[in-house]
Order: sequence, then C-alpha cells, then structure tokens
Amino acid sequence: MTTAQLDQAIQQHRTAQTTVTLTHNKAPLAGQDVIVQQTKHRVLFGSTWGESTIALANAELSGQAKELAEQRNHYFLQIFNQATLPFYWGRFEPQRGQPDTRRILNAARWYQAQGCVTKGHPLCWHTICADWLLPLDNREILQTQIARIQRDVADFAGVIDMWDVINEAVIMPIFDRYDNGITRICQELGRIELIRTMFETARATNPNAILLLNDFDVSPAYDILVEGCLEAGIPIDVIGIQSHMHQGYWGVEKTQFVLDQFARFNKPIHFTENTLVSGHLMPPEIVDLNDYQVTDWPSTPEGEERQAREVVLHYKTLMAHPLVEGITWWDISDGGWLHAPAGLLRQDHTPKPAYEELLKLIKGEWWLAPTKLTTDANGQISFTGFLGEYELLLEKQHITFTVQDKGEAHIAVKV
Amino acid sequence: MTTAQLDQAIQQHRTAQTTVTLTHNKAPLAGQDVIVQQTKHRVLFGSTWGESTIALANAELSGQAKELAEQRNHYFLQIFNQATLPFYWGRFEPQRGQPDTRRILNAARWYQAQGCVTKGHPLCWHTICADWLLPLDNREILQTQIARIQRDVADFAGVIDMWDVINEAVIMPIFDRYDNGITRICQELGRIELIRTMFETARATNPNAILLLNDFDVSPAYDILVEGCLEAGIPIDVIGIQSHMHQGYWGVEKTQFVLDQFARFNKPIHFTENTLVSGHLMPPEIVDLNDYQVTDWPSTPEGEERQAREVVLHYKTLMAHPLVEGITWWDISDGGWLHAPAGLLRQDHTPKPAYEELLKLIKGEWWLAPTKLTTDANGQISFTGFLGEYELLLEKQHITFTVQDKGEAHIAVKV
Repeated sequence: MTTAQLDQAIQQHRTAQTTVTLTHNKAPLAGQDVIVQQTKHRVLFGSTWGESTIALANAELSGQAKELAEQRNHYFLQIFNQATLPFYWGRFEPQRGQPDTRRILNAARWYQAQGCVTKGHPLCWHTICADWLLPLDNREILQTQIARIQRDVADFAGVIDMWDVINEAVIMPIFDRYDNGITRICQELGRIELIRTMFETARATNPNAILLLNDFDVSPAYDILVEGCLEAGIPIDVIGIQSHMHQGYWGVEKTQFVLDQFARFNKPIHFTENTLVSGHLMPPEIVDLNDYQVTDWPSTPEGEERQAREVVLHYKTLMAHPLVEGITWWDISDGGWLHAPAGLLRQDHTPKPAYEELLKLIKGEWWLAPTKLTTDANGQISFTGFLGEYELLLEKQHITFTVQDKGEAHIAVKV
Repeated sequence: MTTAQLDQAIQQHRTAQTTVTLTHNKAPLAGQDVIVQQTKHRVLFGSTWGESTIALANAELSGQAKELAEQRNHYFLQIFNQATLPFYWGRFEPQRGQPDTRRILNAARWYQAQGCVTKGHPLCWHTICADWLLPLDNREILQTQIARIQRDVADFAGVIDMWDVINEAVIMPIFDRYDNGITRICQELGRIELIRTMFETARATNPNAILLLNDFDVSPAYDILVEGCLEAGIPIDVIGIQSHMHQGYWGVEKTQFVLDQFARFNKPIHFTENTLVSGHLMPPEIVDLNDYQVTDWPSTPEGEERQAREVVLHYKTLMAHPLVEGITWWDISDGGWLHAPAGLLRQDHTPKPAYEELLKLIKGEWWLAPTKLTTDANGQISFTGFLGEYELLLEKQHITFTVQDKGEAHIAVKV
C-alpha cells in the first residue's frame, strides 16, 4: 500500500461524517455560531509508565527530578490517552506477601485522573518472575499465580480494567535461559490450559476487565495458539502483538501480513509494545533482544530522521487496519529497556522529530482542533471527525458527545 | 545421549523378558527342544510405495522392469513391515470422478498379503492438489473434499486402515506458491476447524482407522496446533512428524528435543517421512525443499558411509523413545522425490551400506532369529525378545504368540 492508500483507508475506517443538529424548544437553532473540538481519540494511543511518574504520583520527587518527571508527563499527556503500568512479579512483589500495590495504584489513579486508560502488564510471565517461587512445587506455584491474579485484579478494579493476562506463551514452556516457576507450570499444564486458567481467574475477579493475550511471536505459532485458545472457549478480548523493532522497521508489507494473519479472528488487536530506535540498529544475529547488552546506545541525527519517517508509516499502517484499537509506544523516553534510543523523547525529555511527527498525526491530521461553525437553516453543522469524544461550545454551554462508529454519525443536541 | 545410552533405552522400552511355559495335559513339558523365532516387529518399520510395485501388483510389468520391481520388493520385504501408499489428490483423481482406486487397491492388497501394515497418504493436502477444484467456490470445495474422504476411506477399509488425514496444516492457510482449493478452504475455516472436519469425516467412515496429523513443521507452531486440536477434542490417534533431512542429519539432540516437545501429549508418534541422502547435502539456504531442482544428484561412496552412520543413529534415537511406534523411510530407492540419493538402495536397487546397517538392526540386533532352546523342569524357556510376533516350532507344531508389552511377558502354551 502506498501512503495515499493508507491515508484513504484511515479516513474510511477511522472517521465519521458527523452531523450535529441543534434544537431549542423543538425548533432548529439556525444561524448559531458554535465551536466544536475533539477531546479524545477512540483509538488508544499510549506508552509505558515511567518510573519517574510513579515516583511523582507518590510524592517522592523534588527539585530537578520532579521537573523532569513533569516535563515527561507534559509530553505524554499532550499526545497519549493510554498508559501501560508495570506488574512484573519479581519487581511488584520482591518479597512474598509485600506487593507494591500502593505506589502503582497511586500512579494508575494519576493516569486515570488525566483521562488515560490504564493497562496492567503482565499478570503471568516467565521473565522478571518472582524468584521466591523457585522452592515451591508446581501445585503451589500454580495456586500462588492464581492468587496473585485474584489479588491484583481485585485491588486495581475500577482503576485498571485492562490486563495483559499472559505474556509470551509461545516460548513460555520452552524458555530455557533460566529456571522459573511459570515455565515449570506451563510445561506441566500446557499452554492452552495455563492460558485458560489465568484468563478465567482474571475474568471471574473482574468481569468488566478487557483481557489480552500478548506475544512477541508473530509466526504461525502465535496465530495457531490464538486459534486454539478461541476454539477452547477462552475469553480473550484483545489480541496483543508486540513489535520491538530494535533490529529494523518491519515495513508496511510485513506489518500488514501480520495484521491479516490475526484479523481472521475478528477480535480487536492492540499493538502493545512498539519500538523503533533513533540510533544504530541492533545486529540481526541477536535472537533474544535481551542478549544485546550495551551501556551506550546513542540517538543520532540521522537515526532520528529515520525513526520519524518510520513512526509515521508504522502508525498509519496500524490505523489503516480497522481491527487495531490500541497502539502503545515502548518507551516514551530514551534510556529505558536495553538502553535503547527508542524514545519519542530524548533522555532529557526533549522531543525528537518522531514525537513531533506523531503529534502532527494524533493531534493534527487525525484530530479536530477547535473549529468555528455556524448552524444552517436546519440547525445543523457537519464535519468529518475521527472517532472519539467531542465538545461543542455554544455561548456559555459546553456540550459533549461521542462519535462512536465509522460511516455517518447523527448527533441531536437540545440547547 | 551416547549410543550406549540409546541402546540401553531401546532394551528398556522395546523388549520383554519373555517366559514361555509349555504344558501337555496340564503337566509341564520338560526337556523339550524347541525353536523360537520372531516373525514380526510391533514397531512399524516402513517405506513408500514404489510406482513399480503398484505396476507389478496390477500385472503391468514384464521383462527387466518386472525383475527390477521384484528386486525392489525383495529388499523391501526383507526389512520392512509397513508401506505408505499414494493418495495425492491431483494424481489419484486427475479427472474428477475417475479415481485410481483399482490400481492402488491392488497394490495395497499386495502389501497386505505380504504382512505389511498399509497407510494412505494423504487425504487432505494443499500440494499436488486437484486442479479441477479451482473453478469451484469454497462451499463446493469443502463438500468435495469431505466426499473424497468418505469415498476413499470406505473403498479401502479393511485394506488401508491407517491414514495421514491432514498433511502440513501449519503452512496450509499461508501457503502462497500457487492457488489451490485446500489453502482456500483452510483460510476460510481456520486450521482447527478444517482438521476437525476431516478427522471426524474419516472417523465416521472407518471407526477402526488409525488417524494421523502429519507435518514437516517441528517448531512450536506444530506443537501448539496439536495441543489446540486435542483441546478441541479432535480424534487424533497418532502424531506424524516428517524429517526430510536433505540438508543434513538433525543429530540425536535435536531429534530428542522434537520428540520431547510432542511426548507431552502422550500419544503415539510416527516419524512418517525420514530422509538422509548419500550424496552432497542440499544447500542450507533452500527453504522449500521443492525449490532444489537438479537432474543429477549422485550417491557417492563417502556419502553412503555417512548415510549409513546417520541412519543407524537416527533409528536408534527414535527406537529409544517409548512413544515412537512407526518409522517410515522416504524412499527406499534413489531417484525418487527431488532426484535425491535418499534411498537405502541405489537406483538399480542394489543395497547401500545404510540398508545393510539398518537390516543388521531390524532383523539382527533387534530381532530373534530362529533359536534352539530346551525347556527346563518347569517346561519353560526364557529369552529377551523385542516386542512383536513370534513362532515356536516344536516337532511338527507351529505355535504363534505375541510379545505385546515391555517388561515381562508370560506366555502359556498347551501342546
């Protein structure tokens, strides 16, 4: 697909020709000046938590550290409406029975107060796993994992209602880098039975939660796993696909091939972990990205230009596919995972070209800025709007409405 | 595992300490000379059909062609007890409604008369598919595929009671080399629903048939597909694994890794298509083996020595795993698929070292040749026997018995 074709598909799948009819005492309100503006995207555009934001939300910062965190948050909220929060078991509960619930809950509430959808990541994963599981037998590990889901999903209900329930189940039972409790129980139960148990536990604990299966594997193995889970009746709400492109941008064609593989399930798709670096690429011979250990991985001017071009193309490719409902950048600032220059912001939180270009899309090309319109003889205004929430200002009234589905939207407003 | 460890595992899993007690009028028959010999292996050791054997079974050969076919069959029957017969749709039924049933049935009956278990390969596959499916719509293709299974499984019941129901389902819906009817319906139904439909059709048609899922993919994708099918309740009897090693022998470790992946389902495993060449290896960059098109691929003396070593190690590795119940060589003579020197016999049907070494195992080390024994005071003889069928010759009586399970076997014979 050319960029023009992507843009056309985005218009087709992401916008509605919207007509707002204003009436007063059942009569059309003709010739009325109004200002209409978008206030939120229906699509989730997000990024990761930020340790500094967690610290800030817990009043742990002061001075320059606080200013830097606030700067990060400024740029975060200017562009994003979704935040992924960390529940890596080994860090969330380093001592058994002492989970970091309070701090993460404060951070999640802060994001929620800013209008962001929050997601917990992940509830069950073999990596960054709790070492204190190792002396337990499989029955105990399984019970502990189930209890952990029951506890955390309940503790965060109403604040976090979206979860990566399982992370990386394709490799889970054959992961051989180090011993861990989750690989052990996955070997014993099998992937599908493990997934079923964890999904059903999360669902029972929070019936309203949106539950994701998430994986970096985009081979037929994951596709087949999703099919097996759905055939087995496992309540997966969203298919989560990672795309850590440290070794180079996938390109439009591969991305669309991946999307098409998973589209046949007709389930919402989230691109949960998107990475494009603005420095040199990780060498292609690295298989497990975690093996690439460098202390210095600089962002370069050429790399930033490349990243900006690729970010635009990547987001357009995803937005052009009607099943994609969420896109999460990993991480917003440089220096996070693997010290990669993967940020949209540099380490000092200044915006890179990729940030500026993405902002132009998310809050520009795909957004309705405050726009002055005048109702016609029928009391109507019309505009093409991206799906999401809108505000209409009419003299001193603020009226909100939602453009929910693509195609045509008809909104009736009584003034 | 060392070869000694493999040999030990083979003894453990494939033999029984067998005691035969002979009585006459309820009294022990002491001091009686008998000859005991194995007549069949419980494990299926097989190979592919041979076009010449099909022709011979249909009285289509004469002269040197007939002699060559008979020579092939001599070597086949000397070592093997299982034959895989061809049901490639495009060749079996090149004209719709005119299947090659009679010729294949004659060949299958011939193998059956020689004491071989016969297997049909395959009932549903996207390759060598019937081109006359192409003008049909998906509903018709599906109905035609179902009807084909009903017809062929019924026509061959009692002669062929073992089927590769589906071949290569992992790649089936994403196979993009050429359009074909089966990829189309697999895309529409999904892999699991397609597999379910074909297995249930075959099962309903011949409730006694042994039904295999067969694939060359030994990545987690196939492992996960098997799990998904079993979770979905699909009646898979045997997991079929191809190992076309044109690009080099897997080695003991990889073979055992593959076995261990599939062993967790606790289902019988057949290694359905085993290839090791006695010439140069196919270059590693070839992904689809069918892309390697050569007219001359000679067997060499060094290649034959290598092949012989690898065949021994490969069969020992498979025999050392208790779930392996069948091993089929692909093909017995050179010059078959891809013109590869993959035979145990050369193109002129003379045995290569690999044949001689495999014969030493199957009809030597793993076999009880006619052995003279004398019953003790309790009327008993004892021997360690590989699982299978035996014959006991006592003066002019022929008594047959089966050593079914590993461990200890106690056979009572009334004379």
